[in-house]
Amino acid sequence: MNEYHNIETDLILEVSEGLTKNGKTLEGVYFKEEKIENGRVHVTDVEIRTELGARQMGKPKGKYITLESGLLKENCGIDVCAETLSKYIKKLLPHKWNRILAVGLGNRELTVDSLGPKVIDNLFMTYQDMEEGLCGLAPGVMAQTGMETADIIKGVIDQTKPDAVIVIDALAARSIHRLGTTIQLTNTGITPGSGVGNHRNSLTESSLGIPVLAIGVPMIVRTSTIVYDTFSSIIEILQSKHTLRETGKRISEFTVQEKYELIQELLTPEVGNLCVTPKDIDELVFYIGKTVSRGINKAVYE
Amino acid sequence: MNEYHNIETDLILEVSEGLTKNGKTLEGVYFKEEKIENGRVHVTDVEIRTELGARQMGKPKGKYITLESGLLKENCGIDVCAETLSKYIKKLLPHKWNRILAVGLGNRELTVDSLGPKVIDNLFMTYQDMEEGLCGLAPGVMAQTGMETADIIKGVIDQTKPDAVIVIDALAARSIHRLGTTIQLTNTGITPGSGVGNHRNSLTESSLGIPVLAIGVPMIVRTSTIVYDTFSSIIEILQSKHTLRETGKRISEFTVQEKYELIQELLTPEVGNLCVTPKDIDELVFYIGKTVSRGINKAVYE
Amino acid sequence: MNEYHNIETDLILEVSEGLTKNGKTLEGVYFKEEKIENGRVHVTDVEIRTELGARQMGKPKGKYITLESGLLKENCGIDVCAETLSKYIKKLLPHKWNRILAVGLGNRELTVDSLGPKVIDNLFMTYQDMEEGLCGLAPGVMAQTGMETADIIKGVIDQTKPDAVIVIDALAARSIHRLGTTIQLTNTGITPGSGVGNHRNSLTESSLGIPVLAIGVPMIVRTSTIVYDTFSSIIEILQSKHTLRETGKRISEFTVQEKYELIQELLTPEVGNLCVTPKDIDELVFYIGKTVSRGINKAVYE
Amino acid sequence: MNEYHNIETDLILEVSEGLTKNGKTLEGVYFKEEKIENGRVHVTDVEIRTELGARQMGKPKGKYITLESGLLKENCGIDVCAETLSKYIKKLLPHKWNRILAVGLGNRELTVDSLGPKVIDNLFMTYQDMEEGLCGLAPGVMAQTGMETADIIKGVIDQTKPDAVIVIDALAARSIHRLGTTIQLTNTGITPGSGVGNHRNSLTESSLGIPVLAIGVPMIVRTSTIVYDTFSSIIEILQSKHTLRETGKRISEFTVQEKYELIQELLTPEVGNLCVTPKDIDELVFYIGKTVSRGINKAVYE
Repeated sequence: MNEYHNIETDLILEVSEGLTKNGKTLEGVYFKEEKIENGRVHVTDVEIRTELGARQMGKPKGKYITLESGLLKENCGIDVCAETLSKYIKKLLPHKWNRILAVGLGNRELTVDSLGPKVIDNLFMTYQDMEEGLCGLAPGVMAQTGMETADIIKGVIDQTKPDAVIVIDALAARSIHRLGTTIQLTNTGITPGSGVGNHRNSLTESSLGIPVLAIGVPMIVRTSTIVYDTFSSIIEILQSKHTLRETGKRISEFTVQEKYELIQELLTPEVGNLCVTPKDIDELVFYIGKTVSRGINKAVYE
Repeated sequence: MNEYHNIETDLILEVSEGLTKNGKTLEGVYFKEEKIENGRVHVTDVEIRTELGARQMGKPKGKYITLESGLLKENCGIDVCAETLSKYIKKLLPHKWNRILAVGLGNRELTVDSLGPKVIDNLFMTYQDMEEGLCGLAPGVMAQTGMETADIIKGVIDQTKPDAVIVIDALAARSIHRLGTTIQLTNTGITPGSGVGNHRNSLTESSLGIPVLAIGVPMIVRTSTIVYDTFSSIIEILQSKHTLRETGKRISEFTVQEKYELIQELLTPEVGNLCVTPKDIDELVFYIGKTVSRGINKAVYE
Repeated sequence: MNEYHNIETDLILEVSEGLTKNGKTLEGVYFKEEKIENGRVHVTDVEIRTELGARQMGKPKGKYITLESGLLKENCGIDVCAETLSKYIKKLLPHKWNRILAVGLGNRELTVDSLGPKVIDNLFMTYQDMEEGLCGLAPGVMAQTGMETADIIKGVIDQTKPDAVIVIDALAARSIHRLGTTIQLTNTGITPGSGVGNHRNSLTESSLGIPVLAIGVPMIVRTSTIVYDTFSSIIEILQSKHTLRETGKRISEFTVQEKYELIQELLTPEVGNLCVTPKDIDELVFYIGKTVSRGINKAVYE
Repeated sequence: MNEYHNIETDLILEVSEGLTKNGKTLEGVYFKEEKIENGRVHVTDVEIRTELGARQMGKPKGKYITLESGLLKENCGIDVCAETLSKYIKKLLPHKWNRILAVGLGNRELTVDSLGPKVIDNLFMTYQDMEEGLCGLAPGVMAQTGMETADIIKGVIDQTKPDAVIVIDALAARSIHRLGTTIQLTNTGITPGSGVGNHRNSLTESSLGIPVLAIGVPMIVRTSTIVYDTFSSIIEILQSKHTLRETGKRISEFTVQEKYELIQELLTPEVGNLCVTPKDIDELVFYIGKTVSRGINKAVYE
């Protein structure tokens, strides 16, 4: 049992942070890191190659590429980040394709969940005229449509026969440091219960019948995370203070189960419905939406 | 040949106005008018029952119900108009159904073409949870999606198996008096080349396999119409003035062909790309969008 | 020194909660509570009558009326809440006036800070035509205008000579229970450093020269609050558990200064820039914006 | 009496077109034309130097610079047009200044009238922090504020003491060719009855006490213009056709008064409330808003 599974995260890096502390490695999970663009963009390649690795990580087998950059928050970073992003999108897309369907998940009307639709708004769609390139839509969430988003996408795939799907979604991170600094790409698609909106069935190659590239961007941290982090920090601080060391030590010796119960007591249902975002989330969605759509446009048309 | 076909209109009443002047009747086309809500809403029932009638009208066989009311422009008219609308929606829907798919045609980003998406935003979707009621989406236009809207709708119908479709769209009228005063319902669906955006293939019972109720609201008048109307008015005015009667008479004797050519000379391509709308079109879309969505909600759930 | 001053709150009830625990009363501060609308709306009247009271509370002398209701979050609660609100607005406005200037503080482009501008959008302005009634504007925040908001308001007052000002603003609460459930009215105006945006100089009767009624609605909780609350809860939980009582007791014996320092260590600058909101903050702003504007319209015109 | 005064236009070039046909010159009015940016931008400098010139033109004495370019409609034209615009803004601003107040006139909620507010949204405001540069606001229209826009601006000027004002507004043109292709700058400010919204008192150096640079962009053509143009075209066409020459000649001999009356008969109040715009006016406002704000930012900060 992995204590980090208690706190939901959609980000592979946050899963692995918990598991590979102190130089520990995981069988069947491969990591590669590099800094590009003069060190301004940090890229981490994670590949889960075995079922054991998948079980340990709690994530499906496949490739996960994470871009991290402070530039993502800034207007002037759009070009650099889009360029980098397009390179890795190409890497995860199938080698040959004529048409790609882009799907922007999420609710256009709720700022924290609007990244997907915003990206679709800025894509350059050509399929119908040119017989190749991008087509796409923002299907809305179930509260808006009364339908499973997966059903809408399956119907559209049946009719338009694309060779691959790119799904774009806002994610929930564990760490507030992730907000506005991270983009995750994976060829494992999207699995139930993830995302800001928790709004869909599985969207994977096995459910849709064609390759699925998921592009996810953390936009919120669940309030429960702040509670958990505060708890952890208190222990660390207590241990670092001479006079309090005994107290801190005592709490730090709690079993995972004890810690979990303590945190559950702190988490009322009201806390659970809230989320932590930057006050300027509206701007963040605008900038990152531009970066992601530009990255997809470049990957597809250049 | 019918001179009124030169000028496009999506409204059955505008077609018939040209054809039934001077008490003339059309074989196979039946009319019924009534005033309801203390005379504040005018309802015209048109039914085209024969192929001959359809040819004469240039519109497919079926039922057309037109609501006209000055209340549509006003916040305080929403309840009355929605109530009336819901009655006629029920009349044109199949007698038995479990699920209805609502489709808001048009481009959310262009005010004049945004009525359909706005209506979808205000519908109460329940299908997934309750196994009956409304589901729906605003698929966007081809420039946004790279796909035929009809293909998206067909795909969604295949997956979700509704019993009928309601399509909502902004229309183009011939007469400026129609803007913000008219709603047209028809069970003939929507045919290519109509609407503000001209953006779709046929959406009819024969193309989609289930009954289609189309709700259309005129939001623009094509600029060409203003040119045509000015031309007609000039003739009338000339004829009514003693000293100019001869001149007016001469022009009024033009053949349809001559008139058509004259107007074509007045219509440059630039004029064709423009449209005539109320300055406060944003408000109009807001009020009428509320009325239509409330009318559908009532028809489906009450 | 009051430990609750460490954590910012704009709400008088949250200040008093800390100070009047265990039946303690404060000299010069008067409380009155009542339930109205069949118990669905809870009204608390607080009046700070003396300088001593003001010092104890850390808030200026004057009247504070707080409405609390679960109805505020709901579409169907708009009428009831607006009616109640209008009654208390009338109570705090001067007895005689011809013109009132409404000012919607905040940034229209950031959802969490957009309540003020949204309220202005829905007010019924008549002053210019009718020589009496409401006039108003949403001046924007300093980042948008490059000017002190107080300067803009002073300039407008000089030119239009209203008899009173109503300022509407989004507030920060200490408790997440306040989000979407509370409206605070006060005749003490708005003081520097309050509000979601922290964006203005003092707006009070003494700075503007005419009576100021401030209507504030909590829209965010500062992340620091969650940290603080978690810390407090941990102590409580520790004390309530037999095996941990000693540890909890030790921490609870920290001086205010020690606690403050501990919390500061938990609060990185990144945490400080974040805020806690409901995910559907966009809807909350919509509903409460309608309620407040309807309440003002009623108070002024009925 | 000048027949062109019958049809309102805010554009100096449209006034002069009517008056300087056939090589006619106007005393006291000076013209200079040049093509820049490889012929892609057409600049016309008009200066009305005498009272006689002002009377003939029906416009106040001062400088008018008009930029015309097809690039204005396009995303890729923003940089070129903003660069050109900034050059001419500098030319019309006072030589020395510390602070400039930018005012975006118009109604943010009505697309056709929203250019001014959109420009303000994209300006870089610095005054408060840096003691020099831009400050600005979008005061809204009288229907929104209940106040004369001129009063709000005067109040703000009194408090913030800028050295000049830049006013941005959407204009009405006579010719549909102007929509999305023209920007007019003038140091004569803005006079009553102009603009899309017709919403304000005089904003001139004499009314505000500091230099006023007005930047206007035609966004609508009044429907009356289309009627007038159709009328004129019919005459031309009639005269050019052999068999109709007599008829056309007769109409063309109408006095100005007769023509005016004829057109008034064509113009019902309903027509007057409508306007002619491109269907994609939302996009046009977006692109030109960016161009104008970038032009001002460059003029002020580079």
